[in-house]
Amino acid sequence: MELNGLKVAVVGATGAVGNLMVKVLEERAFPVSRLTLLASARSIGKTLGFHGSEIAVEELVEDSFEGIQLALFSAGGGISKKFAPIAARAGAVVIDNSNAWRMDPKVPLVVPEVNPDAALSHSGIIANPNCSTIQMVVALKPIYDAVGIRRIVVTTFQAVSGTGKRAIEELRAQVLDVMQGREAVRQIYPHQIAFNCFPHIGPFLENGFSEEEMKMVNETRKVFEDAKIRICATTVRIPVIYGHSESINIETEKPVSPEEVRRLLDAAPGVRVIDDLSNAGYPVPLSAAGTDDTLVGRIRIDPSVENGLAMWVVADNIRKGAATNAVQIAELLLSRGRL
Amino acid sequence: MELNGLKVAVVGATGAVGNLMVKVLEERAFPVSRLTLLASARSIGKTLGFHGSEIAVEELVEDSFEGIQLALFSAGGGISKKFAPIAARAGAVVIDNSNAWRMDPKVPLVVPEVNPDAALSHSGIIANPNCSTIQMVVALKPIYDAVGIRRIVVTTFQAVSGTGKRAIEELRAQVLDVMQGREAVRQIYPHQIAFNCFPHIGPFLENGFSEEEMKMVNETRKVFEDAKIRICATTVRIPVIYGHSESINIETEKPVSPEEVRRLLDAAPGVRVIDDLSNAGYPVPLSAAGTDDTLVGRIRIDPSVENGLAMWVVADNIRKGAATNAVQIAELLLSRGRL
Repeated sequence: MELNGLKVAVVGATGAVGNLMVKVLEERAFPVSRLTLLASARSIGKTLGFHGSEIAVEELVEDSFEGIQLALFSAGGGISKKFAPIAARAGAVVIDNSNAWRMDPKVPLVVPEVNPDAALSHSGIIANPNCSTIQMVVALKPIYDAVGIRRIVVTTFQAVSGTGKRAIEELRAQVLDVMQGREAVRQIYPHQIAFNCFPHIGPFLENGFSEEEMKMVNETRKVFEDAKIRICATTVRIPVIYGHSESINIETEKPVSPEEVRRLLDAAPGVRVIDDLSNAGYPVPLSAAGTDDTLVGRIRIDPSVENGLAMWVVADNIRKGAATNAVQIAELLLSRGRL
Repeated sequence: MELNGLKVAVVGATGAVGNLMVKVLEERAFPVSRLTLLASARSIGKTLGFHGSEIAVEELVEDSFEGIQLALFSAGGGISKKFAPIAARAGAVVIDNSNAWRMDPKVPLVVPEVNPDAALSHSGIIANPNCSTIQMVVALKPIYDAVGIRRIVVTTFQAVSGTGKRAIEELRAQVLDVMQGREAVRQIYPHQIAFNCFPHIGPFLENGFSEEEMKMVNETRKVFEDAKIRICATTVRIPVIYGHSESINIETEKPVSPEEVRRLLDAAPGVRVIDDLSNAGYPVPLSAAGTDDTLVGRIRIDPSVENGLAMWVVADNIRKGAATNAVQIAELLLSRGRL
């Protein structure tokens, strides 16, 4: 660890997640000696505040990574595919929030609370899982370790911020359109999102699942290092701005009571149990927004199957689901003397 | 059947569902010789349009049912508990949309596409299932009949209209509050519903499930006349006005392909398959609002279990989920010469 801090670059700094990566670096007092903000030429002229100073956004080019020790990428798969290897060759450790490298066998896919050691075997690039995967594995790992998990059936309620800033604007504009009796204008989504929902996140694949649904299957298997765990996902966009919610049914190898699950989760890093039904106590997206924890509630026996459990898991999709997880991976590397 | 029509009463006529019952009676040209609109004393002075004339709302009292042949109730469980037997004793057939009588062994629980014959054995009162149950059993019955269903795991996305008019107003008011930077005011729901969601519909029970979740379990068993079918539900309120959506995973007794399921559902009454992924073709609440069909899409193999299937089911919760189903029960009785 450099006592004076690291030379850090954020790629895609003007996007919803990139922006938040800068904020999270500041909030968590990550040791930064110099922060470089990179984005496309369109963003030249913009600045972002960091520890009281305004930093100008620079254009992302092949030479951008000279001297950079840590590069946090959140600029889409195409940019990551091209520039992450360039940054790594220039000597930076890349933590990539896109889909570009997640399933590459040479790239660790890391959630610090779940598989921290995987991060240590990187060859320049470490991938952040998809937002909906991260909060699910944080909530399930303590149960997986204690009693095993055979099967997961999950249905998600995903916020528009996962799509980016323009989707947030689309929801807000459509809500006003509807409230004022106008036709809602669609630009980003295939259907109106205001006062509506749709089971369509990412393109659909041959097997009838969406890309987002298969991310939850494949990434969970990689993070758990368990190719056999059986998973079925249905991912749905709802008119919420921040915070993904997940209705999760699991079948464990060994029986476990809701009380024991609450105890396991209470003791787990990054998890907060909110499960007080008599006071309407369960996580909701609004209470998760702005926090870094994964919130779990509605923990109950699913009596429809042997060793069944049902629960409700909520997290801020662009914090723990993206920016915070990336910064936590960097913190993990620092604490292990690998940055 | 009386050729000149029946003397019909709608109890709770000024509520969201009662109002729609009147509209659906008109739309479907149900033969009505006299329509009596009943509500609490608060609603005296209100009128509702029916086939071009304005009908005054009358106060619901014990004598309200003299001469009434058909009474459609949607005024809450307490009113139904008290007044449905009074109406039945006065000679009316009661079709009740509340929770009061659904699980009474002497009261048939009827969805005309699913168990029409059950309606014939009534002793004065017939119950309408809960909205979230109705659309699920309409979508699943053709599959159940063809290949059997062992287990259902369902997660719902429920519209605020299911709670009533004041909840619709609460959502609209909260949306404006949030858009204008004010604190959202809560009156009906335990949490803000604008830009939020919560897994809490009806009170919570000892087993950790909500009343709404257990309705889906118990009512489905009763409608299917199958006490052994295994069901786990998670019911969630989302900021949508009309249209409940359901993410459903089932395990069938015998294997069945998505193509065969589409064929079964296309041939089934009251179901419309919308499943054209290349054109973002799947049901959404906005496309279900105002229709009487149950819409089914995203039909795919769930590869995480033997004979697994996943699908997405959407219907207008106050039409097929309430008012339309009640009127269809009356139509069924008429067509069988039982009214």
